[in-house]
Amino acid sequence: VRLVHSLSTTKALAELFSDDALLRAMLDFEAALARSQAALAIIPAEAARAIEQAASNASKLDADALAEASLHAGTLSIPLVQAFTEQVRTQDTRAAGFVHWGATSQDLADTALVLLLKRAQPILSADLDRLEPALQRLSAQHKNTVMVGRTLLQAAPPVTFGLKAAGWLSGIHRSREQLDRAFARALSVQFGGAAGTTAALGERGPQVGRALAKELGLEHPEAPWHTQRDRLASLVCACGVLTGCLGKMARDISLLMQSEVGEVAEPAGPGRGGSSTMPQKRNPVGATVALAAAHRVPGLVAAYLSAMVQEHERGVGGWQAEWPTITAVIQATGVALASMAEGAEGLEVDEQRMRDNLDATRGAVYAEKAMMLLAPALGRDVAYKLLEQASRRSAAEGKHLAVVLAELPEVAGRIEPAALGELEIAEKYLGAAEEYRAGLLRLTAEEKSTKKKE
Amino acid sequence: VRLVHSLSTTKALAELFSDDALLRAMLDFEAALARSQAALAIIPAEAARAIEQAASNASKLDADALAEASLHAGTLSIPLVQAFTEQVRTQDTRAAGFVHWGATSQDLADTALVLLLKRAQPILSADLDRLEPALQRLSAQHKNTVMVGRTLLQAAPPVTFGLKAAGWLSGIHRSREQLDRAFARALSVQFGGAAGTTAALGERGPQVGRALAKELGLEHPEAPWHTQRDRLASLVCACGVLTGCLGKMARDISLLMQSEVGEVAEPAGPGRGGSSTMPQKRNPVGATVALAAAHRVPGLVAAYLSAMVQEHERGVGGWQAEWPTITAVIQATGVALASMAEGAEGLEVDEQRMRDNLDATRGAVYAEKAMMLLAPALGRDVAYKLLEQASRRSAAEGKHLAVVLAELPEVAGRIEPAALGELEIAEKYLGAAEEYRAGLLRLTAEEKSTKKKE
Amino acid sequence: VRLVHSLSTTKALAELFSDDALLRAMLDFEAALARSQAALAIIPAEAARAIEQAASNASKLDADALAEASLHAGTLSIPLVQAFTEQVRTQDTRAAGFVHWGATSQDLADTALVLLLKRAQPILSADLDRLEPALQRLSAQHKNTVMVGRTLLQAAPPVTFGLKAAGWLSGIHRSREQLDRAFARALSVQFGGAAGTTAALGERGPQVGRALAKELGLEHPEAPWHTQRDRLASLVCACGVLTGCLGKMARDISLLMQSEVGEVAEPAGPGRGGSSTMPQKRNPVGATVALAAAHRVPGLVAAYLSAMVQEHERGVGGWQAEWPTITAVIQATGVALASMAEGAEGLEVDEQRMRDNLDATRGAVYAEKAMMLLAPALGRDVAYKLLEQASRRSAAEGKHLAVVLAELPEVAGRIEPAALGELEIAEKYLGAAEEYRAGLLRLTAEEKSTKKKE
Amino acid sequence: VRLVHSLSTTKALAELFSDDALLRAMLDFEAALARSQAALAIIPAEAARAIEQAASNASKLDADALAEASLHAGTLSIPLVQAFTEQVRTQDTRAAGFVHWGATSQDLADTALVLLLKRAQPILSADLDRLEPALQRLSAQHKNTVMVGRTLLQAAPPVTFGLKAAGWLSGIHRSREQLDRAFARALSVQFGGAAGTTAALGERGPQVGRALAKELGLEHPEAPWHTQRDRLASLVCACGVLTGCLGKMARDISLLMQSEVGEVAEPAGPGRGGSSTMPQKRNPVGATVALAAAHRVPGLVAAYLSAMVQEHERGVGGWQAEWPTITAVIQATGVALASMAEGAEGLEVDEQRMRDNLDATRGAVYAEKAMMLLAPALGRDVAYKLLEQASRRSAAEGKHLAVVLAELPEVAGRIEPAALGELEIAEKYLGAAEEYRAGLLRLTAEEKSTKKKE
Repeated sequence: VRLVHSLSTTKALAELFSDDALLRAMLDFEAALARSQAALAIIPAEAARAIEQAASNASKLDADALAEASLHAGTLSIPLVQAFTEQVRTQDTRAAGFVHWGATSQDLADTALVLLLKRAQPILSADLDRLEPALQRLSAQHKNTVMVGRTLLQAAPPVTFGLKAAGWLSGIHRSREQLDRAFARALSVQFGGAAGTTAALGERGPQVGRALAKELGLEHPEAPWHTQRDRLASLVCACGVLTGCLGKMARDISLLMQSEVGEVAEPAGPGRGGSSTMPQKRNPVGATVALAAAHRVPGLVAAYLSAMVQEHERGVGGWQAEWPTITAVIQATGVALASMAEGAEGLEVDEQRMRDNLDATRGAVYAEKAMMLLAPALGRDVAYKLLEQASRRSAAEGKHLAVVLAELPEVAGRIEPAALGELEIAEKYLGAAEEYRAGLLRLTAEEKSTKKKE
Repeated sequence: VRLVHSLSTTKALAELFSDDALLRAMLDFEAALARSQAALAIIPAEAARAIEQAASNASKLDADALAEASLHAGTLSIPLVQAFTEQVRTQDTRAAGFVHWGATSQDLADTALVLLLKRAQPILSADLDRLEPALQRLSAQHKNTVMVGRTLLQAAPPVTFGLKAAGWLSGIHRSREQLDRAFARALSVQFGGAAGTTAALGERGPQVGRALAKELGLEHPEAPWHTQRDRLASLVCACGVLTGCLGKMARDISLLMQSEVGEVAEPAGPGRGGSSTMPQKRNPVGATVALAAAHRVPGLVAAYLSAMVQEHERGVGGWQAEWPTITAVIQATGVALASMAEGAEGLEVDEQRMRDNLDATRGAVYAEKAMMLLAPALGRDVAYKLLEQASRRSAAEGKHLAVVLAELPEVAGRIEPAALGELEIAEKYLGAAEEYRAGLLRLTAEEKSTKKKE
Repeated sequence: VRLVHSLSTTKALAELFSDDALLRAMLDFEAALARSQAALAIIPAEAARAIEQAASNASKLDADALAEASLHAGTLSIPLVQAFTEQVRTQDTRAAGFVHWGATSQDLADTALVLLLKRAQPILSADLDRLEPALQRLSAQHKNTVMVGRTLLQAAPPVTFGLKAAGWLSGIHRSREQLDRAFARALSVQFGGAAGTTAALGERGPQVGRALAKELGLEHPEAPWHTQRDRLASLVCACGVLTGCLGKMARDISLLMQSEVGEVAEPAGPGRGGSSTMPQKRNPVGATVALAAAHRVPGLVAAYLSAMVQEHERGVGGWQAEWPTITAVIQATGVALASMAEGAEGLEVDEQRMRDNLDATRGAVYAEKAMMLLAPALGRDVAYKLLEQASRRSAAEGKHLAVVLAELPEVAGRIEPAALGELEIAEKYLGAAEEYRAGLLRLTAEEKSTKKKE
Repeated sequence: VRLVHSLSTTKALAELFSDDALLRAMLDFEAALARSQAALAIIPAEAARAIEQAASNASKLDADALAEASLHAGTLSIPLVQAFTEQVRTQDTRAAGFVHWGATSQDLADTALVLLLKRAQPILSADLDRLEPALQRLSAQHKNTVMVGRTLLQAAPPVTFGLKAAGWLSGIHRSREQLDRAFARALSVQFGGAAGTTAALGERGPQVGRALAKELGLEHPEAPWHTQRDRLASLVCACGVLTGCLGKMARDISLLMQSEVGEVAEPAGPGRGGSSTMPQKRNPVGATVALAAAHRVPGLVAAYLSAMVQEHERGVGGWQAEWPTITAVIQATGVALASMAEGAEGLEVDEQRMRDNLDATRGAVYAEKAMMLLAPALGRDVAYKLLEQASRRSAAEGKHLAVVLAELPEVAGRIEPAALGELEIAEKYLGAAEEYRAGLLRLTAEEKSTKKKE
């Protein structure tokens, strides 16, 4: 992790795209290619063995020199193949002549990227596997925990914290399904040779491609996809939508953690959430990190989409814009996920404060309820105006809405005293909150069990 | 179509989001809500009838006044409900009291949007149903049409135009599948009331929601989704990926239409592709329009994703950013699609020019082939250097590569004269181009027939 | 204003880019061109008169037909010139032959856009001329109004509302200066003919360009700028930065208006800030509109910047992406400005609530102060830990921080009782708030007076 | 340079934002702060000396541990201050208590960023100082080099390569001026303490701030700008516009380098522009790198702008999104600049090929000229139609346009034979190309000399 990126990635995802890991993936491609071609008797078996052996040692490559050479070559693949060929040559001169046989730079670069993405998926999944159950637990525990609903940041009729957590979960769960599908579609080998016809291998290109895919544990697509980037773009978009959902959850947490609200708190711990100058503080660190990701990822998605317009058989500029972009997207998504997983697992919920904040509205949030009680008699519109006035009086005089209403002649006889008496009981104005909550949870649970059966 | 948007939308998609269509959708919601609630005996049947009748006449509403009032209200729903209530009142005072019963502004606004999106899908599909077969035809017709492959805009080994067209088709086809799925997921009714619990309807909210969904031909989701925008965001992303694929096709066409290349031409016609000052021109108008969309849509996708971070039970700013953004995305995608459909249907392909451009490289594009022929003997790396020199000589002296090679001592005896003789025959260096092409076409065809069976 | 855009533009800015206004600007170009060329004896004076007369009547043009034709022509200019030529012909056959003399489509389209931008500037300025003084007044009135500072949404040492308002003003004021400069640079005529050399006019192109610029009240640049779009891009960026500043102000207002905070309120009024279902609500409508703009504009800026990469002498796709993008940016900036101007002019500030919220922290926000008092004796680091504990105890036991501290042996003798006694007096812990506030206000005032003198 | 970023940054700009450089900048802040405060007798002189000494050794800090701790703390500043304090303590226990005196995390982080930006400016300027003169030279050398103008990638009347190069220069030059101004405005110290009032220093905050600014060679702003990010945002935008201009130049170069066009070539050299599989290739590497930047930067600008909406006195998410974004923008701009500087300095221009391509249009590009010659007699509109037909015949029959025209009865007597004879002489149809070119060059030269005098 570079310090300048210390909030932009987890350690695991930083290592995933490190020089070592990238070179490892590139050499895995070269080794698998040689192995596949030897098995198909396209190159000599001894050459393949020498290539494989050389490939087992990525550490001999000089990453700094490669980086510099890349900028002149326009791709890392060219200097990498050169340097690797030299390494093979030191072992076996003839084998050096069979390195990268029939492949093009983009085959190597794209497949290496895909190999890294394949390793990214379980990292993201691991945090989703923490986050989803944590939200399910929170939702179940707080199915009866009432709190102020808030629309445009103004107090609205009550909801339950269980419903709110289920809402977070639902977006995250749906986004995860999309992400999984996008990964499945994106994890294809790239093998097309110079112009995407594998002409250098005669008609045996597809054979090699299939063998290579099998070696690397990737899909073999119908055709090379050098300039058809929709599958990777969909993956980037799926990250964008997931990060948006995480950002929504994080925004809510940051708002609920406000000193004036105080309804939840992220888990505390040594070195977590403090301030360098304000000893009293407990900052929403996880939410901050997730929100930072939610600010960054949309622009990165735009960059990726704009780079899809790639020329003919290999793009000039668009393709080369992809690596830093998709890397940043995966890392940002991952750090947002990890932050929210940690946040959800240890989230402290202050039920009393939730109740207190509800009470502090002095019944204002039940104005809709009172309106609906009056509406059958007065009409919704007339009732609306009456409640508008009553709410204003309640706020101005500091009286509970039910009290104000009890004094109004228009209300007398139209709302039963008993009904007025329980006007401000949150539990009596939750509508189908529990049904909705349960429905959302059922959905996420059902699909999970379905998935297991498959 | 506003003139300032004349290249940004088709007429059909401009009308889809016109004031009339939007008001119509909003009144459809109110009418369907009343009908549903009357059927469930929640509001009087006569009230529902009066509401339905009033709703049948959107033209009585003053769009200008509504637009102005929206800006003060923060949403179109509020002034619309007010104005509509007044209209109902002129017919039936009591019915006026039952308008918008138990619904919130966002229920109305979101569902109206979804209704419009539901109507957008067939419009986009219609153009995809023109574009895909046109590309299949082009690909089939030109399965043997050889042309220069181009990587980084430099001449590369030959491909077929059939393969190129199949590549365009494959990205578009896959994107379409994603788009269809995204539409299916997005077309859900919104009905949650003030805080998303439908509390104003007691526990009958879900019943009403289901009835309403059925009335409107939409799905009923597990719960209201006021601030969980992932399904719409995925739809916007799917448009982004599709537009990227269309942009790729358009970029290729614009490049192939260059005066110096001249391999394809968009269909001509009166008023199509001319210049105001240059009588000789035939401009790539369809490609231009599609590329303009491909420039605009990524930023719009970013705007949509960044707006997903919506507060609590209703967002302040994020939600309100959605309408103009999703509208622009659908329209841009649609106009790019229509342009490419028209372009593909009438695309003129100049096979001779393709062949001529290939010949004009004087065999340079077969350098890889010659290298592969020499590589078994010399090694890939040594052969590479030899060909680099030969290519340079070929270019400098204007000789065909095969001729230069024939003169080299290193080549003599390593490439058979016969092989050298057919070095520059494009048909002998297409590798698996046809296998890839056929695979791509089969895929798109198979899935189509599968779909029909379903 | 289209309803779908009702929160995305002011009425004035909707009209600015209306069909009428755009056609008017295009005909103004044609008329001014004819007039200039007649004055230079390039075309006959009678022809110019006929052209001018025909141009005086934009209403004869069929906007719908033009929009449709634009999509086929790839630009509005071509069908517009054709239709206009026909109009001239009905008056004077020979004059018809001199319409659009020596100009190219992009000359017409770009200059028309610039003319509309020239009219946009005073519209934006008018709202800035409301917003800036309103913020200056708010800042001056509340220079002594103390309130909780908030970092990461957690309570921090006090600030004044005057300083906060001055902060908003400073960003807006600096952005305005950039915007003004960007307008000044962008308001240049476009006149280059087919390939940007005005070759159709021999060597007289620059003469015509200068005359045309003078006629239209625009600058004459050193050369045509058909594919050098940096000046427009800078204008779009300046709007982006200004909207970001407005979004920051709006975010703060929306947070301060939260039910649980209640420190400010946007002005109320009929039809302003209500809810369709919650009679008690007072929504932050202006903030909502400005935040919606702040969500949309960054993506639009990205779209504009990505479209700068325009090919050779006229772009294919990039140029054509500009109109809808820049229009949306100007409108979004304008509606955010108008909303914040209205919001600032009528902003209600609840000084008592600000004080109450400060008191409600029970001194927690003075932990830094106590730390600094203890630091000279204990060291900053030791003092930090002490205060961390004391703050926790204060929160847990509901005691004021000063009380907790008074009980600690480490504090005794290190903070004077008198100092401890005034620990929690906000006015005694404002540091240089007033100096900073005054500095910001002076700056904005000084420059204004300088500007007047110029 | 990480390999995944090897095309995304120059080495110098990678080092600029390396861990070492960042920690160095942060310790420079702490040292300068201590020095300033000692000079003002706010902290003991010995403490300052100890702090300074410890700060002189950044290498003792464990970057990996800091990165990990940052993610928990939500900012690098907190663990850095802790670790640094411990280092000071090993030398001087008392001095440890005066580290970071009166400063807040964001003061440290922002000022460190600004210090790095200050160092970025000369790096960018150095490449601009290569690029601008190179373009001036190219423009001067080729002021008479005629070539095809190209609009929408179709052949248009001729231009000179000198004019084209001057066009590139003009956009880059204007963008540079904006960038310089943006740097000048952005290079301000951040020093506001916990809530931006420097309350921990009583009223002495501004004194410290001024001293600190002087120590660090930065401006002292009127007030802290913790959540007013417009100056940095403007800098990011200026980079965006400059990169757009570089992308435009790069796009043109990549198009001119196409095998079918071949009018320019980027400089060759060992390891530059080759292909791993195609020995004949000379790829537009510099253009590729610049275009990749032009694809990425717009989305990064969007991310930055969207992050401007920062809450109250310190943002939650927005601020934390800035570091990776602005770093990526500066690096991308820098690598695009370096690539275009190298490309321009060694650009090979093939004048003969330019002439040949012009000739190959068989006069089509002079259709406008012929139309203008006929227009006075026939009218512009009638002449337009005539030329449309003649151009079509010229293309179909492979005859030069002048020949076709000579055969037309409508032309006879209306264009003098002499005029027809020189119809297709490029030099006779350049209009004011040279005047425009010279104007653009003069402008960039004049301002430079003005700057020197200042």
